[in-house]
Amino acid sequence: MLAQSLFSELFGRAPLPGREIVCVQGLGFVGAAMATAIAAARDPDGSPRFDVIGVELDNPRGRERVNKINAGSFPFSSPDRKLNEAVEVASRTKNIVATTNANAFGLARIAIVDVNLDVESVNGAAPQVDFTGFKEAMRTLGHELPAGSLVIVETTVPPGTCENIVAPVLREELVRRGMPDDAILLAHSYERVMPGPDYFDSVVNFWRVYAGHNDEAAARCEEFLTRVINVQKFPLRRLGSMTASEAAKVLENSYRAINIAFIDEWSRLAEAAGIDLYEVIDAIRMRPTHNNMREPGFGVGGYCLPKDPLFAPAAAAIFFKDKQIDFPFSRLAVDVNSRMPLANLDRIDGALGGLKNKSIMVLGVAYRSEVDDTRSAPAETFCREAIRRGALVACHDPYVRHWSELDLAVSDTLPDPSSADVVVFAVPHRAYRELDVLPWLRDAKPLLYDCDNVLSGQMRSKLRAAGIQVESAGRGMGL
Amino acid sequence: MLAQSLFSELFGRAPLPGREIVCVQGLGFVGAAMATAIAAARDPDGSPRFDVIGVELDNPRGRERVNKINAGSFPFSSPDRKLNEAVEVASRTKNIVATTNANAFGLARIAIVDVNLDVESVNGAAPQVDFTGFKEAMRTLGHELPAGSLVIVETTVPPGTCENIVAPVLREELVRRGMPDDAILLAHSYERVMPGPDYFDSVVNFWRVYAGHNDEAAARCEEFLTRVINVQKFPLRRLGSMTASEAAKVLENSYRAINIAFIDEWSRLAEAAGIDLYEVIDAIRMRPTHNNMREPGFGVGGYCLPKDPLFAPAAAAIFFKDKQIDFPFSRLAVDVNSRMPLANLDRIDGALGGLKNKSIMVLGVAYRSEVDDTRSAPAETFCREAIRRGALVACHDPYVRHWSELDLAVSDTLPDPSSADVVVFAVPHRAYRELDVLPWLRDAKPLLYDCDNVLSGQMRSKLRAAGIQVESAGRGMGL
Repeated sequence: MLAQSLFSELFGRAPLPGREIVCVQGLGFVGAAMATAIAAARDPDGSPRFDVIGVELDNPRGRERVNKINAGSFPFSSPDRKLNEAVEVASRTKNIVATTNANAFGLARIAIVDVNLDVESVNGAAPQVDFTGFKEAMRTLGHELPAGSLVIVETTVPPGTCENIVAPVLREELVRRGMPDDAILLAHSYERVMPGPDYFDSVVNFWRVYAGHNDEAAARCEEFLTRVINVQKFPLRRLGSMTASEAAKVLENSYRAINIAFIDEWSRLAEAAGIDLYEVIDAIRMRPTHNNMREPGFGVGGYCLPKDPLFAPAAAAIFFKDKQIDFPFSRLAVDVNSRMPLANLDRIDGALGGLKNKSIMVLGVAYRSEVDDTRSAPAETFCREAIRRGALVACHDPYVRHWSELDLAVSDTLPDPSSADVVVFAVPHRAYRELDVLPWLRDAKPLLYDCDNVLSGQMRSKLRAAGIQVESAGRGMGL
Repeated sequence: MLAQSLFSELFGRAPLPGREIVCVQGLGFVGAAMATAIAAARDPDGSPRFDVIGVELDNPRGRERVNKINAGSFPFSSPDRKLNEAVEVASRTKNIVATTNANAFGLARIAIVDVNLDVESVNGAAPQVDFTGFKEAMRTLGHELPAGSLVIVETTVPPGTCENIVAPVLREELVRRGMPDDAILLAHSYERVMPGPDYFDSVVNFWRVYAGHNDEAAARCEEFLTRVINVQKFPLRRLGSMTASEAAKVLENSYRAINIAFIDEWSRLAEAAGIDLYEVIDAIRMRPTHNNMREPGFGVGGYCLPKDPLFAPAAAAIFFKDKQIDFPFSRLAVDVNSRMPLANLDRIDGALGGLKNKSIMVLGVAYRSEVDDTRSAPAETFCREAIRRGALVACHDPYVRHWSELDLAVSDTLPDPSSADVVVFAVPHRAYRELDVLPWLRDAKPLLYDCDNVLSGQMRSKLRAAGIQVESAGRGMGL
């Protein structure tokens, strides 16, 4: 049998009775972590619950990820030892493999979809979603998966996508294969994967929402999640429809994005009014009804937050056109967050009396602390505009060696600040929070601009006592 | 001595050694509750800590409030027994009185400012604040208060008001009296009074933020609050400046308003996509980082939330003009919240195929549950527009007898639903949440429209089983 021989080829052994085969489609930041977590799931006797096959497209990026996993290492560098060890162990016990051969889906009892889907709004126009690649991926599943298998879509999508795009594509392919059009079950359950020091736990130790196309799909999805997620501590929550589950993910990230963006106008007021907005917010957060309030910052980055709020207007435009729903908050949040790094740059520009030929040292280019991920990092917006205004920009980041978006080498030793006009603390990496700034500066006296509450109050006082000007986003001059 | 004889006239006795005299300026929803809470403060031996004088303007409304307090009853009807009893006790033990005689401030060691300050934006124009009455009130304090007294402003104001308006007015008056211009101390500390069943506790059992014009003022303010507020359980938080304290109050309410308004666009999407947004939000709130998320509703009312976000742009326009700060979120929230009742009305309009000559029964006209307060209630916007569209509107509320804003009698017994085309559940008063709807309807089959999650899922199913159409804000048809 073809499927059997493919399994042997991949795993070097026969399938084990009772051990389910799970395929993960897409081995990006989410899929690779998800595949690892599934492979790490153990029965009480310590034996792996699943054989996991990561499936990627047959292109250079896909092949690179496949090779990494097959060599026993996680495809992205991560400070999370738990994650790195889990891949190593799974590779050694040989219950995880990766391949670019889509026939592998033919072995799956369960297929997890972790394929990217982008949304973009150019100059505030209606957000556009290009479903081409995503639909192609769904078509592959419909073409390959065996009858009785379950598809769990984890991709963040415009609410309505599983019902209106995934289900019809799967049906079409099944009919083409001469099979009943409900031979494959469909569910949606979203992840909340967060690269960084708790990367692995962000998959396994976190609340999960899910929903099925029908009761059987929901039940099968629940059964699977129960075997992977720590559901005792993080109970599952079943919703009434896949659209509801898709909506929950988008709403969750939109909420975050909106609350970050809202603080921006207050940062400007705090700076003008000479108050410390961090102190104010800290006081307000004492109220449990207000403890989700966000703080001033450098901006929003990563793959999700900058774009996810656009999935709501996208859904309305694609699936519910006749309702003419407007999304002023979602659109405003995306817009304000994208411009936030420039508000910081403008303030520096003002303090230096122009940026032309000024030397700017940027500490931190990753999109958040303790990661090497630079996707949509606020530093990108900041540095591009600083360069456009004639500044000389030097960057440092303890995690990033080559900044692919700017095709820029990034220093891994703290550069000499003696020629800098301004040092920008852009990311609260521990290395910066723990930096003893004064000895590093030696005789240099650049403006220090703190975008993300990196420097403590004590440090700011110490620096000022040494005659150094320190300013912060969201704080009045000299606070 | 004049002051001594005024005290005797008010309290019918001489001042007691060691018992501080506190004047509360303004006996509205906040001032009356604050005066009551201060009068209720007790030493360990059970004796009152303060003699409290409520001071109102000498006009019909002011005199009515004064007379009520002097008769031993709270000036507003409230379901909170604690509050009503506290006024009664304080009146009996004679440590609270009220007066329209501003000379009473001459007796005060501490004056609490609970004078209203309105902000308004007409058609999205820059918010206007009319300081006339507020300044006059501050002038009265500067004119009357004895040297060494402390003013604590509790009024919600544009951040910068104490520094730029209150302090100068006080100084001016002191100089006019030939006194040192710092003879009166100034502080800001905001309340979070919430009328309803926990009215009294919302003063005493709640986190307090404060700041002083100088260290002495802050210390004196702290000392006073410690003697009134339950600071063991709700620790005080001192901020760096009065402007920071003013900002904290405005930001706190703006955060709430923005998060309510943000859900509005998602309510429309949920209704179009056929999902239950309450269910979705409930699932998301499992995450501690998302537990402040708000739910779909009827709209925003009361004295604070509809307007408070405008204090930020007002502050920028009045005190920090040169900075040109924009407040897109604050302005959008006020706008969206004010139109929220109309979104509900539009959906009913659609369901009924027009409102002309349709009979609408509105259950609940107060701005929130379990209060009789109708200030800026969403029901006002809703009913005015329904009437404008030709509907016949009947209202019920268990707490409101006369709806002053619409000069409308409100029924206190549930009206007969037999002629209603639609019954709108507008406020989650307990009386509605506990209503057994089916027996009340008898043979009537109006559309039931639930704006505020008043009807449980069980109740909705039961009603539908009886052939009654039930729809909700934030839920798809038939959910």
